[in-house]
Amino acid sequence: MKRLRCEKLKNKVMSSKEAAKFFEDGMIVGTSGFTPAGYPKAVPLEIANRAKNGEEIGLTIITGASVGPEIDSVLTEANVIKRRYPYQTTSTMRNAINNNKVNYCDMHLSHTPQWVKYGFLGDMDIALVEAVCITEEGYIVPSTSVGNSNVFVNCAKKVIVEINTSQPLDLEGIHDIYDLDNPPKRKPIPLINPSDKIGTPYIKCDVDKIAAIVFTDLKDKTRPVAPTDEVSKKMAHNLINFLEEEVKSKRLPKNLLPIQSGVGSVANAILGGLQDSEFKDLVVYSEVIQDSVLDLLDSGKVKFASGTSLTISPDRLDGFYKNFSKYKNKLILRPQEISNSPEVARRLGVIAINTAIEVDIYGNVNSTNIMGSRMMNGIGGSGDFARNGYLTIFTTESIAKNGDISSIVPMVSHQDHSEHDVMVIVTEQGVADLRGLSPKERAVSIIENCAHPDYKEELYKYFNKAKEGKYKHSPHILNEALSWHERFMKTGSMKQLGTKEA
Amino acid sequence: MKRLRCEKLKNKVMSSKEAAKFFEDGMIVGTSGFTPAGYPKAVPLEIANRAKNGEEIGLTIITGASVGPEIDSVLTEANVIKRRYPYQTTSTMRNAINNNKVNYCDMHLSHTPQWVKYGFLGDMDIALVEAVCITEEGYIVPSTSVGNSNVFVNCAKKVIVEINTSQPLDLEGIHDIYDLDNPPKRKPIPLINPSDKIGTPYIKCDVDKIAAIVFTDLKDKTRPVAPTDEVSKKMAHNLINFLEEEVKSKRLPKNLLPIQSGVGSVANAILGGLQDSEFKDLVVYSEVIQDSVLDLLDSGKVKFASGTSLTISPDRLDGFYKNFSKYKNKLILRPQEISNSPEVARRLGVIAINTAIEVDIYGNVNSTNIMGSRMMNGIGGSGDFARNGYLTIFTTESIAKNGDISSIVPMVSHQDHSEHDVMVIVTEQGVADLRGLSPKERAVSIIENCAHPDYKEELYKYFNKAKEGKYKHSPHILNEALSWHERFMKTGSMKQLGTKEA
Repeated sequence: MKRLRCEKLKNKVMSSKEAAKFFEDGMIVGTSGFTPAGYPKAVPLEIANRAKNGEEIGLTIITGASVGPEIDSVLTEANVIKRRYPYQTTSTMRNAINNNKVNYCDMHLSHTPQWVKYGFLGDMDIALVEAVCITEEGYIVPSTSVGNSNVFVNCAKKVIVEINTSQPLDLEGIHDIYDLDNPPKRKPIPLINPSDKIGTPYIKCDVDKIAAIVFTDLKDKTRPVAPTDEVSKKMAHNLINFLEEEVKSKRLPKNLLPIQSGVGSVANAILGGLQDSEFKDLVVYSEVIQDSVLDLLDSGKVKFASGTSLTISPDRLDGFYKNFSKYKNKLILRPQEISNSPEVARRLGVIAINTAIEVDIYGNVNSTNIMGSRMMNGIGGSGDFARNGYLTIFTTESIAKNGDISSIVPMVSHQDHSEHDVMVIVTEQGVADLRGLSPKERAVSIIENCAHPDYKEELYKYFNKAKEGKYKHSPHILNEALSWHERFMKTGSMKQLGTKEA
Repeated sequence: MKRLRCEKLKNKVMSSKEAAKFFEDGMIVGTSGFTPAGYPKAVPLEIANRAKNGEEIGLTIITGASVGPEIDSVLTEANVIKRRYPYQTTSTMRNAINNNKVNYCDMHLSHTPQWVKYGFLGDMDIALVEAVCITEEGYIVPSTSVGNSNVFVNCAKKVIVEINTSQPLDLEGIHDIYDLDNPPKRKPIPLINPSDKIGTPYIKCDVDKIAAIVFTDLKDKTRPVAPTDEVSKKMAHNLINFLEEEVKSKRLPKNLLPIQSGVGSVANAILGGLQDSEFKDLVVYSEVIQDSVLDLLDSGKVKFASGTSLTISPDRLDGFYKNFSKYKNKLILRPQEISNSPEVARRLGVIAINTAIEVDIYGNVNSTNIMGSRMMNGIGGSGDFARNGYLTIFTTESIAKNGDISSIVPMVSHQDHSEHDVMVIVTEQGVADLRGLSPKERAVSIIENCAHPDYKEELYKYFNKAKEGKYKHSPHILNEALSWHERFMKTGSMKQLGTKEA
């Protein structure tokens, strides 16, 4: 059998229902998965069934990043997930987090594997990971993502593997698993080029730790990508203009430097904008390989892509699998400890392109909490790359909610990236290049180039008033700094209604 | 002559007054110096004299970190400094920054060398660096700090060297200069142990680039260290208790991991607290080697210290120089591109101990701007270490201004370190271990363990009221979040005066 080649493990095959019995109330569980790709599906559904049948079973779930609905929706609805690290995206999980049903700790994705290895999140009971196959030696070959699977398999007391036969066996060979020792024994990561293979194509695992093997054919529940709209096109256009200027000024090589891009439809559209650019021989060093990267590989614009997850939209997935052989030598999936490593990001000099919820006039960025309190998804890997990029760019549409929200605000209502980590802001209005500017110079650049015309005057009004008086390096009026958000919550719009509120 | 051994360069010796003539209005100048140690002194004083005599001469000054008064006070008073990177500490410079006389961009200290090399801050005209000597080959041996001297010497069009004869020639040999290539050619930094020497004891320099050599005997204007007070002792005690518990829980080895500590009297006192602890065979991997590290080297508690600057207080400096031979094999000074490297900090697993101005109930930290607008010094290297530490600890006294300011606030008025980068808060009241906690759990831990009793009730009041309603992952009341700071600015105290303001 090609999928389970280790003789010793054949007696560990069982139904998902049987495997679900290993999970006990209070356990800490690490799962594979990074985006809705490569996460376990069959066993979580059976754990949920146990809970629905009245069993008390509360778990801490640690993943690579977001996972599919079988975990974050179904297990949440069944009240199984009590604590969640480090990232999530389903509306069910988001609501549970915002309404006190799940304790969520939003983490840098490069921190999660370390914290697990250092014992900061407690002892891991079970690693539940999806695989395309298990080798003769009992080693685990991941599927469409690596995430933290290698770390969880190493740290957990027991390992349960879901062999997913809907994932093509062809995926074997695109993974490059490299484990980092803990300090003080840690060595340099020997990765110099994005295409370097530095590890093994499988996760090593002691066969005695594998408690159960479950076969399933449930597919990755990836999300469709929205068609590229005019605003995204403008943002992509502005971004590419900026990069072209950097090449002209000799601050970037002609084929740029490895590109990291955030996840989602807008990020996908922005990356897609490279298709119509003059750039070629590009390389991607990112977390998630999305549809747009496939297009860029197809057209030859991108010659290589390294990530930790392959997230192809549902309608392209079959075609991708069918033509997988043509991509196989152009793709690597790595553990997120490597894909998101500050060491590697800074060495390679990635161009970090991430999405902001809002940006303030001094260049601070909110990536996570709407109106200061309400969690969206999480910081994800944006901090890993933003802090360490050769160039760090944040993109956002200048307005949201049909213009009732300005994405450029006097002060961010929650802050994930500080002024020290943000070099360039891109909106559909233009580009603010903040490198080397003082806060007051940044404010003028951001308002002038990035703010929507509907909000420019009010932003200047705030800024000019804030500058009055002494001791104003980053001028703020503390009782007005967050008044735009307050106004939105009261009136449904950040816009002034005729007269200014006191 | 021992101080200038290169025959070819002997004709470049001139007076500081002559050397000062190389500086022209509009130039970008990089100087040595990291803390008031190892910075150029004689030439800046002469540049100031030119300006005082009516010459128009405005400069951009880029340093390692803070420097002494000959640059940041005298040149500022003479209106020479127009733009300043990346850190500063004199009151003259601080006032000039806060009152719009100097454009200051506050940067991570590990970013500065990169930004200069990448051309993001413009082309550097002159590197002005202090040395203890110049070798036969014309190579420059730095004095009490390295900072960015190697980078500036490499990047600048011209190099001017101040050979400072007040700095002992014995310093030759403690520097380890390692230059990093720019991406895409950058390689792993081959540093695995804090005591590894990976470079050369001098800065290589093309002799033709050296435009002037000035001899001086002006001493480093280091600052006295305040005697350790009771509050600092309590903070040190709390910190050490916490570290002892981590060792007991096997999350840290017995001799800990390399220690990084911020700069200043409180940081010095906290590090000094290790003197009375059970720990031994400690290693320091930090920016600045302060008095307390010498004590720990003397007592054998610390066996090795790596930094980029030696900042010994004035009354200890002579003794230190006299007994320098006993320290020489226990100290290394590195470029700040290495001392502050995220790659190295994460690999070594430093215990990062830095000082906060204020912390909010969710664990966000303000290190730079008082009451949101007024710059103190800058973020310095705190972010380089905090993000990448094995353990990241921020210390602050729970109150300031005789109790009129609470250092624990509902929302920080300026943010430098996000919740994602802060593991542990230590005040004289106690320790909040935030690892793995959700925001609401963090709030309880911080208020309970770290806040001053005078402010606990009000903090709980804010937190409990903020939790009301839906969608509250990080609960805030936006029109009250900064009201404590407002109240302080209006009334001189964050404390409620009888009744609560509307």
